[in-house]
Amino acid sequence: MTDPANDNDLRGATAFQQLHWLASGRIDSARLTAACRAAIERVNPRLNAFLALDDSAPAQAAASDVRRREGRNIGRLDGLPVAIKDNLDVAGLPTTAGLPGRRERIARADASAVTRLRAAGAVILGKTNLDEGAFGTISANPHFGPVHNPLRNGYTAGGSSGGSAAAVAAGLCSFALGSDTLGSVRIPASHCGIYGLKPTHGEISTRGLVRAARRLDCVGILARSIEDLAIVMQVLDAFDPADPRSRRCRVPLATPDWEPGRLRSGVQSDLGAFGVTPEVRAVFDAAVARIACALGSRVEVDFSDYDFARTRRAALLVMESELAVELAADIADPKHPLSPRLRSMLDYAKAKSAVDYASADRVLDEAVLKARRVFTDIDVLVLPTVAHGAYSLVDRERANDADLTSFASLVGCPAISLPMGTLPDGMPVGLQLVGAPGADLRLLELAAICAATLDAAPRYPVGP
Amino acid sequence: MTDPANDNDLRGATAFQQLHWLASGRIDSARLTAACRAAIERVNPRLNAFLALDDSAPAQAAASDVRRREGRNIGRLDGLPVAIKDNLDVAGLPTTAGLPGRRERIARADASAVTRLRAAGAVILGKTNLDEGAFGTISANPHFGPVHNPLRNGYTAGGSSGGSAAAVAAGLCSFALGSDTLGSVRIPASHCGIYGLKPTHGEISTRGLVRAARRLDCVGILARSIEDLAIVMQVLDAFDPADPRSRRCRVPLATPDWEPGRLRSGVQSDLGAFGVTPEVRAVFDAAVARIACALGSRVEVDFSDYDFARTRRAALLVMESELAVELAADIADPKHPLSPRLRSMLDYAKAKSAVDYASADRVLDEAVLKARRVFTDIDVLVLPTVAHGAYSLVDRERANDADLTSFASLVGCPAISLPMGTLPDGMPVGLQLVGAPGADLRLLELAAICAATLDAAPRYPVGP
Repeated sequence: MTDPANDNDLRGATAFQQLHWLASGRIDSARLTAACRAAIERVNPRLNAFLALDDSAPAQAAASDVRRREGRNIGRLDGLPVAIKDNLDVAGLPTTAGLPGRRERIARADASAVTRLRAAGAVILGKTNLDEGAFGTISANPHFGPVHNPLRNGYTAGGSSGGSAAAVAAGLCSFALGSDTLGSVRIPASHCGIYGLKPTHGEISTRGLVRAARRLDCVGILARSIEDLAIVMQVLDAFDPADPRSRRCRVPLATPDWEPGRLRSGVQSDLGAFGVTPEVRAVFDAAVARIACALGSRVEVDFSDYDFARTRRAALLVMESELAVELAADIADPKHPLSPRLRSMLDYAKAKSAVDYASADRVLDEAVLKARRVFTDIDVLVLPTVAHGAYSLVDRERANDADLTSFASLVGCPAISLPMGTLPDGMPVGLQLVGAPGADLRLLELAAICAATLDAAPRYPVGP
Repeated sequence: MTDPANDNDLRGATAFQQLHWLASGRIDSARLTAACRAAIERVNPRLNAFLALDDSAPAQAAASDVRRREGRNIGRLDGLPVAIKDNLDVAGLPTTAGLPGRRERIARADASAVTRLRAAGAVILGKTNLDEGAFGTISANPHFGPVHNPLRNGYTAGGSSGGSAAAVAAGLCSFALGSDTLGSVRIPASHCGIYGLKPTHGEISTRGLVRAARRLDCVGILARSIEDLAIVMQVLDAFDPADPRSRRCRVPLATPDWEPGRLRSGVQSDLGAFGVTPEVRAVFDAAVARIACALGSRVEVDFSDYDFARTRRAALLVMESELAVELAADIADPKHPLSPRLRSMLDYAKAKSAVDYASADRVLDEAVLKARRVFTDIDVLVLPTVAHGAYSLVDRERANDADLTSFASLVGCPAISLPMGTLPDGMPVGLQLVGAPGADLRLLELAAICAATLDAAPRYPVGP
């Protein structure tokens, strides 16, 4: 049993549980926020999850407590302290996006998603560390230092939303926002043993996000339970006329039958082709066996007509080209040079022609068609989130880190990562559920059943 | 009164009228089709509207007549002869797209839109002339010769769907398909005195269309009445899972009040900035005065925050880059060189970088936002279709031909061109109505009222 009298239990509880405690008056936001801030002060020097704290957090929490006492709560997140990935604007704080030259550039307005969180009463705690330009999968930021996995010091927390994931796992916030272009919410969720949601493309406004690739970028959520993801998703899910990629309407729920046993789950027997390690494969097989009843009938998905390598190259060119536009001022800033790694990737885009971009963008359209064919035969695609567990920060970033997550990004599908078990080295690994575009809430329903059966999350807070 | 006993009256009648005659047994499809084919044989040597005829048309018509006699009509277009722009596949015929090297490349399958026409019983007559690669506004094809305006020999029919527009105006078919990337359906509709619809982007499948720019390309309809546009639109409007840009769902009708007098119509007082000639301005002002009641309250639209020239450049780069991909084999074919004009535009794209493309594509996103702001304040934007009337084919293509049509394309809005009157030189000019995305049927409703009031279409068939 978690006990709100104990600060660790308080911080490690789910947002859902914290909301109950707040509603019943067992805790107030001031205490919850103070507990998070104290823990950040203690563990952040090691984790390096936060890049900046919002000094107004205690005042925000006090205001929430006043509202609650007076019966004027403004929303369903009232009083919950949240962490925001540092490529999303929070008014009054810099948005570094992990870049060296932006520490003095203070955001004037909140990103849309942050506005919606505030409107629902959330307390903005601070900004979290990430890969440089959000372009990476290990959150080893060359300018701000690496994020450490709270489950094991010296190990990657995953990326690019590594700071957000570490903060959630370590109980430094109730939940966190991240962004996901090819897997940047799901990969750190897998490595940190938490839950991550990348919604259908266009469901959550990306206004105020430093863009990586407009047709791929999603704001996502990192949390300690599926219920938490669902609560936050319902707050954030809205049409935003100021975001050109915002979806004006949800598609009708595409799947006629999600009743127990009637689901059609797509699986891939040949996970080895994705470089999935035998250890991850074993955890995955055991997990799928345990949730077999929820997954319904098993359909083998044929990816033989889909060229993952070609699609990855195309996605990277689109992303590098768009980043080169987004970071034009950073590239030109002699006082704050970008890392050689990022610079070489942006230079690569500059050396490619407009025709190459058009060609790459058309390859991504082919991926959209492949996904439509896939989701004709199945309701949900089930696969590991990452081909391997978290690895040492001494190692180089692995080229296949995003291979299992990128498909959902390329085709705009919602995807969830949930803890599915522990590898022999003690580190967690995630199960990924991918649904058809617009099936976000249905996917959360299914994930909740799977999560309850698997019960594979570590006890939060983890780590130091 | 039109009289179906007279072949000219028969050919010049609206599709709606022809369907009535077919349904009442006053004519059959064999006679209608034969009348069109005889007229094509007679006038096409001058008009150059058709590039290829489908020899099976008489057999298609006979099959329709058998169906009708036996009470087995298959759809609402049963027996109507239609013309297809030659960048849309018709099985068994080449799809030249106006390019020199494709005369032997026979399409194996119909384009989606053609499939839907056939399924509704339409008789496919043949393929119509267009600008080279559908990239132009005057249908002066360097390989197949220019289309002549049926209202005046030696004048442009507009482009790039010039052959389709000329065929409709000259009564060589019941209606025609075109494609519209920046105005290619509406410009020839204006110049030929007929009705043209560019639907909301993604409403009509573009599978089987030679692509110019995926985010702009629309299949459109050219016809001799608004009712005809509506009938055909309802046949063609569908989600196509095989078209990555197909819209899965229509947006809710965005405009709460289209009741007479409650409409908010956006106008531009400064039409001179678009190069609108005083003659077109006079016709436009007179037309707007006549339909004032239908247009409701007049709202001045502010385009001062919208850079037309910059957006045009961006759209052209996107189009040129995509065309360079689509036409890769044509570019490499030494036996059938592209025109120096087209080649230089494609070379321009090759000389631009992938970063330039990304930058241009982001400019188009800004246009999407501008349209959203515009359609917050108004229900319909009212402007001329083209800044001038049809001009002599001896003249060069005018750089501002698409300036008034491109806005709707860039932002995915539906747009209709309808005849609004005659210029002092006797040539027609179109009124353009632009609605919010998804408002296609509402826009057709309004256009029908305007068309009935203006009654400005020439008597069809026009010309030789």
